[in-house]
Amino acid sequence: MLTLGHLAAYLGANLKGNPDAVVRGLAPLQEAGPEHLTFLVDKQYRKFLPECRAAAVILKAEDAEACPEAALIVSDPYLAYSRVSHLFETRLPAIKGIHPTAVVADDVQIDPTASIGPYVVIEPGVWIGPEVVIGAHCFIGARCRIGEGGRLAPRVTLYHDVVIGQRVVMQSGAVVGGEGFGFAKEKDSWQKIAQLGGVQIGDDVEIGANTTVDRGALSDTWLGNGVKLDNQIMIGHNVQVGDHTAMAACVGISGSSKIGRRCIIGGAVGMAGHLEICDDVFFTGMTMVTRSISKPGAYSSGTGIQPAAEWRRSAARFHQLDDMARRLQQLEKRLAAMTAGDNDTVPDA
Amino acid sequence: MLTLGHLAAYLGANLKGNPDAVVRGLAPLQEAGPEHLTFLVDKQYRKFLPECRAAAVILKAEDAEACPEAALIVSDPYLAYSRVSHLFETRLPAIKGIHPTAVVADDVQIDPTASIGPYVVIEPGVWIGPEVVIGAHCFIGARCRIGEGGRLAPRVTLYHDVVIGQRVVMQSGAVVGGEGFGFAKEKDSWQKIAQLGGVQIGDDVEIGANTTVDRGALSDTWLGNGVKLDNQIMIGHNVQVGDHTAMAACVGISGSSKIGRRCIIGGAVGMAGHLEICDDVFFTGMTMVTRSISKPGAYSSGTGIQPAAEWRRSAARFHQLDDMARRLQQLEKRLAAMTAGDNDTVPDA
Amino acid sequence: MLTLGHLAAYLGANLKGNPDAVVRGLAPLQEAGPEHLTFLVDKQYRKFLPECRAAAVILKAEDAEACPEAALIVSDPYLAYSRVSHLFETRLPAIKGIHPTAVVADDVQIDPTASIGPYVVIEPGVWIGPEVVIGAHCFIGARCRIGEGGRLAPRVTLYHDVVIGQRVVMQSGAVVGGEGFGFAKEKDSWQKIAQLGGVQIGDDVEIGANTTVDRGALSDTWLGNGVKLDNQIMIGHNVQVGDHTAMAACVGISGSSKIGRRCIIGGAVGMAGHLEICDDVFFTGMTMVTRSISKPGAYSSGTGIQPAAEWRRSAARFHQLDDMARRLQQLEKRLAAMTAGDNDTVPDA
Repeated sequence: MLTLGHLAAYLGANLKGNPDAVVRGLAPLQEAGPEHLTFLVDKQYRKFLPECRAAAVILKAEDAEACPEAALIVSDPYLAYSRVSHLFETRLPAIKGIHPTAVVADDVQIDPTASIGPYVVIEPGVWIGPEVVIGAHCFIGARCRIGEGGRLAPRVTLYHDVVIGQRVVMQSGAVVGGEGFGFAKEKDSWQKIAQLGGVQIGDDVEIGANTTVDRGALSDTWLGNGVKLDNQIMIGHNVQVGDHTAMAACVGISGSSKIGRRCIIGGAVGMAGHLEICDDVFFTGMTMVTRSISKPGAYSSGTGIQPAAEWRRSAARFHQLDDMARRLQQLEKRLAAMTAGDNDTVPDA
Repeated sequence: MLTLGHLAAYLGANLKGNPDAVVRGLAPLQEAGPEHLTFLVDKQYRKFLPECRAAAVILKAEDAEACPEAALIVSDPYLAYSRVSHLFETRLPAIKGIHPTAVVADDVQIDPTASIGPYVVIEPGVWIGPEVVIGAHCFIGARCRIGEGGRLAPRVTLYHDVVIGQRVVMQSGAVVGGEGFGFAKEKDSWQKIAQLGGVQIGDDVEIGANTTVDRGALSDTWLGNGVKLDNQIMIGHNVQVGDHTAMAACVGISGSSKIGRRCIIGGAVGMAGHLEICDDVFFTGMTMVTRSISKPGAYSSGTGIQPAAEWRRSAARFHQLDDMARRLQQLEKRLAAMTAGDNDTVPDA
Repeated sequence: MLTLGHLAAYLGANLKGNPDAVVRGLAPLQEAGPEHLTFLVDKQYRKFLPECRAAAVILKAEDAEACPEAALIVSDPYLAYSRVSHLFETRLPAIKGIHPTAVVADDVQIDPTASIGPYVVIEPGVWIGPEVVIGAHCFIGARCRIGEGGRLAPRVTLYHDVVIGQRVVMQSGAVVGGEGFGFAKEKDSWQKIAQLGGVQIGDDVEIGANTTVDRGALSDTWLGNGVKLDNQIMIGHNVQVGDHTAMAACVGISGSSKIGRRCIIGGAVGMAGHLEICDDVFFTGMTMVTRSISKPGAYSSGTGIQPAAEWRRSAARFHQLDDMARRLQQLEKRLAAMTAGDNDTVPDA
């Protein structure tokens, strides 16, 4: 239960309305009732403002006039929403201390403000910082370090030698430090290569549900500060991801590739191994990245969606493309020859 | 151990053969032995019927003549097979009651006919209905509700506020209610947005192994009745999936997309966010869905498989396509001009 | 702490240098210090050899001259590296015996040299061979068999009736034997088909983190000897994978497809169901495999990466491809007719 006055102070917002009015939740503009706080980000939703029934709307100064209810005026309403959202968190607060069912090795150091859930298993040499929350069924391998304010949802697995910065969040099913896909060929069979490196993760990183980050083969796999990984992503061994790069779900990055800072990788993008991607690159969803990129900007591959019957024709022609290009060139030559011939013959006439 | 008479009654089938004959298992037509029940669905397998050694064959009336063994005559043999298959289930029956190692919060309501496996953790406010089976190592977050006859395989994670209908099946590694990928940009970095919505799941839904369904940002993510999700699927926050829509493995649906009823989404399809797909749409495997679809039917994208050397030529030409199209147009114009010239000059001649 | 003499004997290498010199770790050529062993595989790294500070370098005879430090001369340095890597394993050694928190059914047979971790759950009828390691939180379903030297990382789930050969490694989050995606259509809804088969896995197989291998519908899903599966792979029910086939991450193989021996499946390849792929096929990453392949070799699909603005033009033209092909053919006909006409008229002139 928060008052608008409290929220205005928290956001540094200019409040137009009663500071003692109370909000009990957050809701989208069109669904908000008199107990809700809401926000206006996109101009195309401005038309819903007159009929908005929310207790208050977070918005820009230019929209305040049109707002029939209380307004919290800020320069970036979406950012303000992100900040205020945490005040309404529905997750249960963690219980400090170590659950009696946790199996913790003798020499593990756990800050007394940390929370270790039921059936957690922690191997020797681990250090767990202040205010860290380790959910039920997590496994923390030998010598891992988890910095202040980290939060592992239930059932996260860290293999040994995973070193994590501050305020890192990992969703359920994430596996960090698994053994990368390293094999040497011996005649027809594959000989496993022990994966001796670890994983280093910066501050403010998020790792999504069922995402996997493999340990390095010799050196460490590395995720920079502020890296955000959505669900079901695969990061191969020795990959390096620069600060504040974000990846949408289902991305696969093959081993030893190096991705710059502030990149945005769309969903289900696949990247070959040993590539270098510079800073500020954006790959649209499902792009197949088979070469290094040295120039910032947006990149794509694939073909757009079509009705299946039309697509079958396009796809069949794709296989003839090289032939078509040659025939096109042939036609150009012949036409040029004919025209030249015409020109030649004209004077002759 | 079932008799053909029992099976005929169970299926409402017309039995041609000895009702006291016994079957001990199900097997494919070509592998079935004298102790097996089998079935004939596809006409191209009819040729194997004469040599079939099964105790009995589930088939259509039109195939009964050709069957040398006992026949269970039905209108839809595949559907009959699906029904009868459950009589031969090899999974261990669940043990009713709460395993002594389960960690269950005080106010949780669990029906006495439910089964809670070893090392399950259940947070406060949960309701678990009759005949529900919760496998080992499952985590059930606060205020979840699991309707009658639900079955969670070992190691399923439900975050808080996941509400599930009746007879819902979830395979191992599924994560439902994880925090969606919501971040607001602040200069170069990303600020996390608390994910305050839940997940609502209808009746008769199936969720495959290691599939993830994120909770809503403000409202709930929603899966309708009879939705079937295969393994390794990713459903983003606020997605809505209509009744009886089925998705093959590895599909990724980005946040806030809304999919109609009775759609079939092929394997590894990727869908952008904020799209609307109408009822009865079929996407072939690996289709990249980047726009809304308002007309039922089949849709595709991508290119077909080729020998790599040929593919490299096609792919190189793809990058020249716009140029090729312009040159084609140019040729057409020039040829038109020439022909027109010919025509013009003819009268002059 | 290993001496070069010991390593030379272990590898069958020809040692150039002091056999009593000691190495304490493995490192890449350019990062290795005086306590490290390193290796030279790729000729393009030969230039770094003169400045290498490693204790010793594993290399080919032809590179020994250029090596300023001790050399371990072998015919295949990468293979030698793979063998020697295991001597430097950083994983904690497993503790033999059954952890007191494991929940093990009465009739389970566990070899006394096996290691069963905390919170493992083992159902009836399971057999676990010598030197097997079962990590924390694993679930082993009824009647599974795990052959000698197998290693399951923490949190692996085996459903019932999964039979595993010797020396098989599974990474965290792997799910083997989940119920495949089998449904029969009944009007608008889907009726589940019980999945009655199991999974058979050969010797020396590796299964990556969060990879899922579904059980067979009637017969077994089958992975041959030496099969290597990277992370986040999906193997559908009844799939058969031949010996020594390797798949990179994020591959999806639909039900009942049969893949030959020694195939290499690139990352995020998708394969339709009921296909047959012969031995020695290589699919490049993200290939969409929609037909059977009967000829060994490399295959591809998709389009290469482009700057997004250029790609949009190519993609738009892709939809016009059939039209372009027809117009090209039309032009060729018209030009042929014109030329023929010219030829015709020439004699007339």
